[in-house]
Amino acid sequence: MNICMRICYLGTNYFGFQIQKDKVTIQGVIEDTFFKIFKKKIKTIGCSRTDAGVHAKEFYLNFHIDDFNVSCLGIQNALNTYLPYDIRILDVYIVPELFHSRYDVKQKKYEYRILNSKILDPFRYNEYMHFKYDLDFNSMKEAGLYFVGEHDFKAFMSSNTGVKNTVRTIYESSIYKHEDVIIYNISGNGFLYNMVRIIVGTLIMVGQGKINPSDIPSIILSKNRKNAGFVSEARGLCLKKVLYDN
Amino acid sequence: MNICMRICYLGTNYFGFQIQKDKVTIQGVIEDTFFKIFKKKIKTIGCSRTDAGVHAKEFYLNFHIDDFNVSCLGIQNALNTYLPYDIRILDVYIVPELFHSRYDVKQKKYEYRILNSKILDPFRYNEYMHFKYDLDFNSMKEAGLYFVGEHDFKAFMSSNTGVKNTVRTIYESSIYKHEDVIIYNISGNGFLYNMVRIIVGTLIMVGQGKINPSDIPSIILSKNRKNAGFVSEARGLCLKKVLYDN
Repeated sequence: MNICMRICYLGTNYFGFQIQKDKVTIQGVIEDTFFKIFKKKIKTIGCSRTDAGVHAKEFYLNFHIDDFNVSCLGIQNALNTYLPYDIRILDVYIVPELFHSRYDVKQKKYEYRILNSKILDPFRYNEYMHFKYDLDFNSMKEAGLYFVGEHDFKAFMSSNTGVKNTVRTIYESSIYKHEDVIIYNISGNGFLYNMVRIIVGTLIMVGQGKINPSDIPSIILSKNRKNAGFVSEARGLCLKKVLYDN
Repeated sequence: MNICMRICYLGTNYFGFQIQKDKVTIQGVIEDTFFKIFKKKIKTIGCSRTDAGVHAKEFYLNFHIDDFNVSCLGIQNALNTYLPYDIRILDVYIVPELFHSRYDVKQKKYEYRILNSKILDPFRYNEYMHFKYDLDFNSMKEAGLYFVGEHDFKAFMSSNTGVKNTVRTIYESSIYKHEDVIIYNISGNGFLYNMVRIIVGTLIMVGQGKINPSDIPSIILSKNRKNAGFVSEARGLCLKKVLYDN
């Protein structure tokens, strides 16, 4: 049986999704909790690897299990009872045997939140990058548009991850502002390591006048990490939507 | 010199505002941080005692200090640099010698947030009380209105605090709903220990059909704590506004 779970989590207290030895991760906590309740070892496959501190409002994982006759609702309720508050199981379904929550992803959508205010806001600390200097929003907006389309995003990938193909297609790259909040939305068929956070770091440098919006195409073409901006803070990043064919 | 600070804080990580031995409190952290920076011991007066886990979007405190020639902005910037992220200094002003941030309060306004959903939301955990059972909002709304006016609120005070006069005047007691969120607003000239949280606990019992809205006046009149509801969770409570004459 192949079981898929739709979950969400506040990433603040975790070293990312993926299991790591001696680190508290979302995947680790879910597998441990499942074992504690049902005495069955599962090996979950996540739709993405989110970094330490990054959040997900929608995240899918699946696992294969046999000789197991707890209902989907039973799994959901038991896990939500024993998991820590910052991880929630939103749905549990039985999926076709061949479904793979990572390989089958068609599109992912991320949101990045910047709080552009003089004083940090304690109530928004965990989900916003606080940036206290002035940002020219219109330049950032203009720069954001250049990321749309199929590009080799090598310049926007943190160093050596062993990934060979660095070409990705971006469907949406838009930014808007509401009072002291700047929200960046990006969706694509896949993302390289730290890609969204480096794009946001680059947009912030555009907002500071350190990079020209019209320089973005040549930064992309250079395929050189040194030409792009800094890696913005993990806390501002959230995986919002994951799309599959079905 | 009498200095007043307007601050805000996320109360999650603190044992309330007021200094307590061997406990991390907001007042304690502010006084310690002030001493670390300026090498001056201050004894602050807070406008209110908030409980462990309760938040404040606006809170005033003042302290008397002599032989001190750092500007208000200098105090604010230094404190905001060294304080933990969850306490922020919003303003610093010099006030008349006789100003007392507690005695001079004319009105306080609290907000209480309930997340009335089947599944807890990790992103709203710290600032909402999660309640997963159905609530009849209209009954709660009706019940809320009975708290307005001058009443002896002894039935809505946690046991012995040594307070003699338990009469308080409530100016606003209103409740509204937006999707799965219920927000209760209450303002008054003062509040007894746990008063807002017991009123909310009572309103929740009204929402569950365990108390009739029209029973509220007799619960108030009884002056008996046993007739009122439970103490709702601290995390949902936030001090929103503090009003003075000037």
